[in-house]
Amino acid sequence: MKRTAGDPPTNAPGVLALVEEAIGADLLDAEGILAEELHSADPHVANILQHVSRFRGKRLRPMLLLLTADACGGIRHEHKVLAAVVEMIHVATLVHDDVLDEADTRRHVATVNARWNNETSVLFGDFLFTHSFHLAASLSTTHACRAIGRATNMVCEGELSQIRERGNLDLTEETYFRIIGGKTAELCAVCGELGAHYANAERAVVTAMEDYARSLGLAFQIADDVLDLTGNEWSAGKSLGSDLAKQKLTLPIIRLLATAGEPGVGEIRQLLAHPDEHTREKLAPYLERSDAVQYSVDRALQLAATARRHLECLPDSRSRRILAEIAEFAARRQF
Amino acid sequence: MKRTAGDPPTNAPGVLALVEEAIGADLLDAEGILAEELHSADPHVANILQHVSRFRGKRLRPMLLLLTADACGGIRHEHKVLAAVVEMIHVATLVHDDVLDEADTRRHVATVNARWNNETSVLFGDFLFTHSFHLAASLSTTHACRAIGRATNMVCEGELSQIRERGNLDLTEETYFRIIGGKTAELCAVCGELGAHYANAERAVVTAMEDYARSLGLAFQIADDVLDLTGNEWSAGKSLGSDLAKQKLTLPIIRLLATAGEPGVGEIRQLLAHPDEHTREKLAPYLERSDAVQYSVDRALQLAATARRHLECLPDSRSRRILAEIAEFAARRQF
Repeated sequence: MKRTAGDPPTNAPGVLALVEEAIGADLLDAEGILAEELHSADPHVANILQHVSRFRGKRLRPMLLLLTADACGGIRHEHKVLAAVVEMIHVATLVHDDVLDEADTRRHVATVNARWNNETSVLFGDFLFTHSFHLAASLSTTHACRAIGRATNMVCEGELSQIRERGNLDLTEETYFRIIGGKTAELCAVCGELGAHYANAERAVVTAMEDYARSLGLAFQIADDVLDLTGNEWSAGKSLGSDLAKQKLTLPIIRLLATAGEPGVGEIRQLLAHPDEHTREKLAPYLERSDAVQYSVDRALQLAATARRHLECLPDSRSRRILAEIAEFAARRQF
Repeated sequence: MKRTAGDPPTNAPGVLALVEEAIGADLLDAEGILAEELHSADPHVANILQHVSRFRGKRLRPMLLLLTADACGGIRHEHKVLAAVVEMIHVATLVHDDVLDEADTRRHVATVNARWNNETSVLFGDFLFTHSFHLAASLSTTHACRAIGRATNMVCEGELSQIRERGNLDLTEETYFRIIGGKTAELCAVCGELGAHYANAERAVVTAMEDYARSLGLAFQIADDVLDLTGNEWSAGKSLGSDLAKQKLTLPIIRLLATAGEPGVGEIRQLLAHPDEHTREKLAPYLERSDAVQYSVDRALQLAATARRHLECLPDSRSRRILAEIAEFAARRQF
């Protein structure tokens, strides 16, 4: 079979097949809503929308929302609408991230800033943000608007902190976790919350699902940060090493700096302070002599375990078992 | 009295005094809500919020919303919340505009991109957008979320069209009006709609108020575009000539090109195609020999007259009279 740009790598774990079997039809419905919403009478905007639809990703957030719904009592129409909403918000943050990172490709496709320009990216991200709120407001109550407004606001706070801390070689683990808690985990958390809430789960279960998805989001981001440092660009489907280029310290680097003795630590700081296109290779030998990568993977796995514990309040079900597997997958993923 | 950065020019028309008298206390309440909402536990974000609060503008949108409410039956708590929401959205679009325009100052204050950087501006604009939606979702129904989501989405479409048309020296009046209809008039229109809707006005009145505010928004933008070409930087409180620098054709330039005969039109096209810091001065003699500025002002005044006609379905009241004056003011304003 010929590979096309959006295909996951052939070693994609079996969890995706399980997801497909459990909620494949619902994910398709959500995709249908997304596709239907993402049209525009303006041919230019329609053109960009068409381009961006090729950023076909892992659909992690819609999966989380729909599986949580299923595990908490059943998927309703609201869940499918909200799955489209969270994916739209996620794509909006990606489009703006690509401006910030000056990235050229995203899932093997030219970024909006590369294909058009930064102005178009900024406005198109805004277009997606505002459209997602409009769609969320099509539900009968303000619950989703409130939850999504709050979560996306915290995503922005996390990203603003990250920008401010750029170049800070003394970044602490605590601040790192605060940043990724905002920029990544909040949007996951709201997927758990909305999945459970709109399935009429009781309050304690809603909170547990929110906590499950938050822990999973943290694990996912740590794995992403490890990948940026040690991964393969083809299977990741995007430019790597961008954290180093932008002087964003991530968990493996924080650990590396904390544990490397002299003279290594001085050399590493020099490399980090003056990044170039070879920084990733130059750091590799230091990382090999260190426990930094394993330490980070272990933290991700611990968070995955925490996530799984939050599932214990649910009755056993296929969707609950898949949620447990997704947590593990998020921590171990290679793409 | 010492002038401070945020003061309006001393020739500010008496309409502002009338607004102050009619709804000064309500505007203050809305400002209070805005100030209360725009805080952050993160000291960096709090710092940017503090800085941006100095972009104290004309508060046109909150005024429109509150005066419409008053003219349609009375100002309620929801109106004050929504006045804060629309102002927050407006500031979000300004912050992103300043990135797009590479502007250094805004109301005599350094822009976020100049004071921090573009990344911070993009994310901070997103922070304001998402926060405004969160605040809109604090009301008891989804009506405002839906209306605001839709309007802001059309603002983005208008701005995206504007970017695409940059450098198009053959831009038509029709496309110009479609662009400003999105980027400026929609957010004004939603102020009229929300003001009337939340005052429990009947459907025909709600539509009339939306149309009033849309026409006013168009008049306001034409006046802004004339100002960018002919205004004084101090009284405008921002860098001028940016439309020329960014090769955005506005109504006076479209008219100038349509009416200047050869060889003038060729010279003007040359100036527009290769903008530099003196383009505004170099165009001045061509504008003086043309009716382009007067033509544009006349269009703005016609739109103001249309806006006033939409007020006729309301009973006479102080607020209705002020709304009529604001339409005139929007078209004639010098700042």
